[in-house]
Amino acid sequence: MFVAKNLFTPGPLTTSDSVKKAMLIDLGSRDSSFIELVASIRNQLLSLAGTKKGAYEAVLMQGSGTFSLEAVISSGLSSNGEVLCLVNGAYGKRVSEMAKVLGIPHQILAYPENKSIPAEDVQKALKKNPAIEMVSVAHCETTTGIMNAIETIGEVCKGFPKVNYFVDAMSTFGAVPINVEEIGIDYLVSSANKCIQGVPGFAFVIAKTAVLEKTKGYARSLSFDLFSQWKGLENNGQFRYTPPTHTLLAFAKALEELEQEGGVIGRAYRYKKNNSILLNGMVAKGYKPFIDAENRGYIITSFLYPENNDFNFTHFYEDLANKGHIIYPGKLTHTNCFRIGNIGHLFETDIAALLQDIPNT
Amino acid sequence: MFVAKNLFTPGPLTTSDSVKKAMLIDLGSRDSSFIELVASIRNQLLSLAGTKKGAYEAVLMQGSGTFSLEAVISSGLSSNGEVLCLVNGAYGKRVSEMAKVLGIPHQILAYPENKSIPAEDVQKALKKNPAIEMVSVAHCETTTGIMNAIETIGEVCKGFPKVNYFVDAMSTFGAVPINVEEIGIDYLVSSANKCIQGVPGFAFVIAKTAVLEKTKGYARSLSFDLFSQWKGLENNGQFRYTPPTHTLLAFAKALEELEQEGGVIGRAYRYKKNNSILLNGMVAKGYKPFIDAENRGYIITSFLYPENNDFNFTHFYEDLANKGHIIYPGKLTHTNCFRIGNIGHLFETDIAALLQDIPNT
Repeated sequence: MFVAKNLFTPGPLTTSDSVKKAMLIDLGSRDSSFIELVASIRNQLLSLAGTKKGAYEAVLMQGSGTFSLEAVISSGLSSNGEVLCLVNGAYGKRVSEMAKVLGIPHQILAYPENKSIPAEDVQKALKKNPAIEMVSVAHCETTTGIMNAIETIGEVCKGFPKVNYFVDAMSTFGAVPINVEEIGIDYLVSSANKCIQGVPGFAFVIAKTAVLEKTKGYARSLSFDLFSQWKGLENNGQFRYTPPTHTLLAFAKALEELEQEGGVIGRAYRYKKNNSILLNGMVAKGYKPFIDAENRGYIITSFLYPENNDFNFTHFYEDLANKGHIIYPGKLTHTNCFRIGNIGHLFETDIAALLQDIPNT
Repeated sequence: MFVAKNLFTPGPLTTSDSVKKAMLIDLGSRDSSFIELVASIRNQLLSLAGTKKGAYEAVLMQGSGTFSLEAVISSGLSSNGEVLCLVNGAYGKRVSEMAKVLGIPHQILAYPENKSIPAEDVQKALKKNPAIEMVSVAHCETTTGIMNAIETIGEVCKGFPKVNYFVDAMSTFGAVPINVEEIGIDYLVSSANKCIQGVPGFAFVIAKTAVLEKTKGYARSLSFDLFSQWKGLENNGQFRYTPPTHTLLAFAKALEELEQEGGVIGRAYRYKKNNSILLNGMVAKGYKPFIDAENRGYIITSFLYPENNDFNFTHFYEDLANKGHIIYPGKLTHTNCFRIGNIGHLFETDIAALLQDIPNT
């Protein structure tokens, strides 16, 4: 009924057969074997973030990555707290949209989609406004694949002890080294179906314990209450509400396979190689990347539509889909682009096969 | 690593192998094959609810069933609207807790956990307070397994044209006949991992179109915005945020198997038989159900702890778990009970095997 294709997207991704096969069992969500699985996943996530229990907590949240981002905004700010949203793409902007709907005071520092966020502007904004309680930034802005310098912005935030630093590492965690302690991250969010190569169904927040502890009663939603979700997981090891048990089984297998690949470093190595083969091949065919080399990541790449007037994205997409490759449309405001991701269970041969089916410009 | 056991719980449930095997493929969440799958699921849900597109809309929402309940409360009430929460258990009460956290004015009509909600009290409350915009009730209150008379309460709500009627049919939809048009339901919520026998990862709202259309801008959350989620699904057939693709594949297979079993009537027949075998067997062993026969459903049954002082629930549970049966603890405020569900991919032989391992009181 459905034909398997390679997903050159930002997620859901192509996963290994063994990850998918881990879902072939039904577990009771309150049974001890499942509770142990959840505890082990939480500890492994902390380890991947370069920290451990006590200093930080891994809180799992049902739903898409956006739900976990909203949980941080919705339950990480006091009733008077303001959030400074750093924006150079749709995902940075989405956090400001959450704040708006939730009635949370927020400021936006917005930049063009091909420009990384300048840390000095963050410094100025924080000096100017002492009501700011949180700074939010996307590590890899998936709109374009541009990277933001979370280390440099983290250094700025360290100078403002009342400011919590919130990094959306959705598309990087597991494939780009991030040490939350060293960078000074207070909240980091990523999702099951990104670089750890699980299937979609939940996301997670890695939160500094001392920060999380202060947020009791902050929540503006019953479901998106990070503090209560954390306490629930701590008290009896269970989710407060039904967890996606099969997705968690797949994720545990995915973590095992990440370890086997050499952890974050090993995965970064493969993704970089995938990306380099893709980029060289595309450039040889006459396609131009939208982001400059110095700001480009190795997760997903935006390519400008060729200047050739005959280019029709729908035909281009469908032709590739018919040949077994799913690429991704652009999401830019002013420029026509398409995107090709190189994360997930994809290897050199998969990238080569894709390139073989992409016509010259 | 994990041992398969039968889940006598309210969900996640035991599912068929074919439902789980439907998850062995990765689909792109924006690809046409997935978009067609989602459209087909939405139409089938409307059909199961005795209605069709135009009159009602099926809106799928990532996360647990609780998330969809919160989406209704969070985005189904105007800024001045009040909700009347009918409560005879933890799930009815949860809706009032959502309203509280969201700052939505609400009233509670509370009853003992072994008493069905009396429709005449709803009539009185609605007459008394014209600010009430919504009445919420759980069809099967899973705390005990008690049924609430959603038809009779629906008749009352019909007398108040400004009042929207919200039925939490989490544990009944797919196994207890519900015709949303006849009953006059405006919002119905259920979940993928209940009587339709899918795996957990999303839930759904069946909403009256004319009601949903009026709620633009009502949302108090970006993620839990039913109107926008609906418009997203309508405009391009896609979820606004990453959907649990594998869970949706499993759900499509589960819907097919529900149809093969004879639809809601066929499934009700099996669950009733399961329940009757369970109940007779338990009574023969000296266990007493907590709910009277006239109010008891055929989904999940609460049994009082035996009067025998030696009874230790933890030992009882673990002994059964070691023998391959996962039952469920109680959730009552004042009475010691345990619960045994008989929904999911369970048959006479499974119930008989469970009974064989339950000791006499």
